[in-house]
Amino acid sequence: MRIEGKEYRTIWFENNAVKIIDQTKLPHQFIIKDLKTVKDAIKAIKVMEVRGAPLIGGTAAYGMALAVQENNDTEFIKKSAEELIQSRPTAINLKWAVDRMMKKLSGINSDQILDIALNEAKEICAEDEKFCENIGINGLKIIEEIYIKKKGTINILTHCNAGWLATINWGTATSPIYHAHKKGIPVHVWVDETRPRNQGANLTSYELNEEEIPNTIIADNTGGILMQRGEVDMCIVGTDRTLSNGDVCNKIGTYLKALAAYDNNVPFYVALPSSTIDWEIKEGKDIPIEERKSEELSHVEGVDENNKIKKVLIYPKKSKAMNLAFDVTPAKYVTNLITEKGICEASYNGLKELFKK
Amino acid sequence: MRIEGKEYRTIWFENNAVKIIDQTKLPHQFIIKDLKTVKDAIKAIKVMEVRGAPLIGGTAAYGMALAVQENNDTEFIKKSAEELIQSRPTAINLKWAVDRMMKKLSGINSDQILDIALNEAKEICAEDEKFCENIGINGLKIIEEIYIKKKGTINILTHCNAGWLATINWGTATSPIYHAHKKGIPVHVWVDETRPRNQGANLTSYELNEEEIPNTIIADNTGGILMQRGEVDMCIVGTDRTLSNGDVCNKIGTYLKALAAYDNNVPFYVALPSSTIDWEIKEGKDIPIEERKSEELSHVEGVDENNKIKKVLIYPKKSKAMNLAFDVTPAKYVTNLITEKGICEASYNGLKELFKK
Repeated sequence: MRIEGKEYRTIWFENNAVKIIDQTKLPHQFIIKDLKTVKDAIKAIKVMEVRGAPLIGGTAAYGMALAVQENNDTEFIKKSAEELIQSRPTAINLKWAVDRMMKKLSGINSDQILDIALNEAKEICAEDEKFCENIGINGLKIIEEIYIKKKGTINILTHCNAGWLATINWGTATSPIYHAHKKGIPVHVWVDETRPRNQGANLTSYELNEEEIPNTIIADNTGGILMQRGEVDMCIVGTDRTLSNGDVCNKIGTYLKALAAYDNNVPFYVALPSSTIDWEIKEGKDIPIEERKSEELSHVEGVDENNKIKKVLIYPKKSKAMNLAFDVTPAKYVTNLITEKGICEASYNGLKELFKK
Repeated sequence: MRIEGKEYRTIWFENNAVKIIDQTKLPHQFIIKDLKTVKDAIKAIKVMEVRGAPLIGGTAAYGMALAVQENNDTEFIKKSAEELIQSRPTAINLKWAVDRMMKKLSGINSDQILDIALNEAKEICAEDEKFCENIGINGLKIIEEIYIKKKGTINILTHCNAGWLATINWGTATSPIYHAHKKGIPVHVWVDETRPRNQGANLTSYELNEEEIPNTIIADNTGGILMQRGEVDMCIVGTDRTLSNGDVCNKIGTYLKALAAYDNNVPFYVALPSSTIDWEIKEGKDIPIEERKSEELSHVEGVDENNKIKKVLIYPKKSKAMNLAFDVTPAKYVTNLITEKGICEASYNGLKELFKK
């Protein structure tokens, strides 16, 4: 998608380095950063220069290629794989991508191992892009149906950033929106600010602006009354991990919006590539929920009146804060899942029909 | 209650001026400000140097006394009353306090009009303090019942600031908490940050710290998963306007917490003095919901590494934001109302029994 009129992907390989957009600097600065070693890739995931389940997966895949480029000794590759998997606990794609890379590389000791690794990472990213495009094509049908009835602008609420910046291209939750916009359906997006880290404001609103899609940032507290007032036609969010029973683990606060949507008969969709499905964990309460540093809450970065980036403490000095990164939305509050293979019920049967034939 | 070990009220009259704590400067600076004219009082309400329904009422009452002190001409007093009522549209106490002052002052042209006005304002504040104390005594019973069963620390979630800083003393939602703490019941408060303006963090956590009550600030998004995990024993919030059917208008985001509490069988209490009851408006959707400046969302104030107060823009420059200040929680999600006269069902019958005998 576009930034300042130019087409980008979120990750690519060039001159022996993996190139990423440093997402901790957005929206105030647009900086392309080089990752040269697997340690760089692990750090980029940990400090969230890259984030979003699919992009974490893509970065982990390229991280494995960087490990091979550094040292193609089997032990080093194995250790790198383990470290990559540990870098963020909640995103399921991370493990999926690393496992897939390990499978591809296992038993290969030839000169071609780097090429094989790079090709596999590129293939993982290309597949994700195709998945996201298909999510858009499938989700577009839902928006079209609402548009046929409403005839006016479709108001869509989203939480956090499940946009193209969270994937390789198109995004998950945003892909149906981009597809609708390209087809000429008038859309307006309510963008949840998404505390902490404000990824809705910093990333989703930013990328929608760059694609010239009308959008309005709101506090995370606001979605409820907008739904009560009939100002939301549908919600679409992404997910970091979808259980086979349809429970959805996503950015903290998703659950509250799902409750409000349910209470006001607003359809609530979750968009996901099948790589985020966890067929193993059976119940939402068993998903490991990452607790991140409280500084992400107590300190905020922005630009001051001189256009300088400043970090400020916004809490009382004596106060403690606690920063859980995800919550779990029970399947019963999810209208449907939008996947690359089609739309299905948020349930074992729904997912099985599409993915376990 | 205490600030740095010293006892304060939020408003008092001294040397021909109304003294307030400038709440826009908290928690980084503790500044006592003089209001000398009714215009000062209107501005203090508008820019939220004072906020919280009961304190807005108290300030409006003293604002009327300042009008009388400036110019005791009937027309001027009447015009001042109208301007005060317009200063914030949602808080019901504002109109209640001004109407009560007008009733007291009507037909009085004597030299004593200023004394009468000041005494009435003082009386309104003293009544509010007594109401809040009684809310605490009544709410304490609920906490005690939970404590008898649980025996461990009681985790209480609150939203925004319905603390003593929102009233004259004690607070509404916090009064049961302060009373429990004084009685030796171990309490821990989950403080919703409460975007925009962060009044949970800036004011509630601040005042709990000063009273040495354990508390932890969380993002507004976090309450849902804490309730799913059983880490919240009860919620208590305040209200800016309570309808006679039990619907509760309070700081934006309250409704989302009420939904989560309902979904997880966590009791959800609303603490209020009877001055916030609106016997006229019949349905939540008819309450005027104040829309405030989007800068309250897009800009955040904090202290930088040099301990200087800085305001920073946290959104993309091209982005729009929308800032609704309140939402409405339907009565069905409210376990009970805690009032100065006792605890009642959030319903017309519940309220009537206590207040319309």
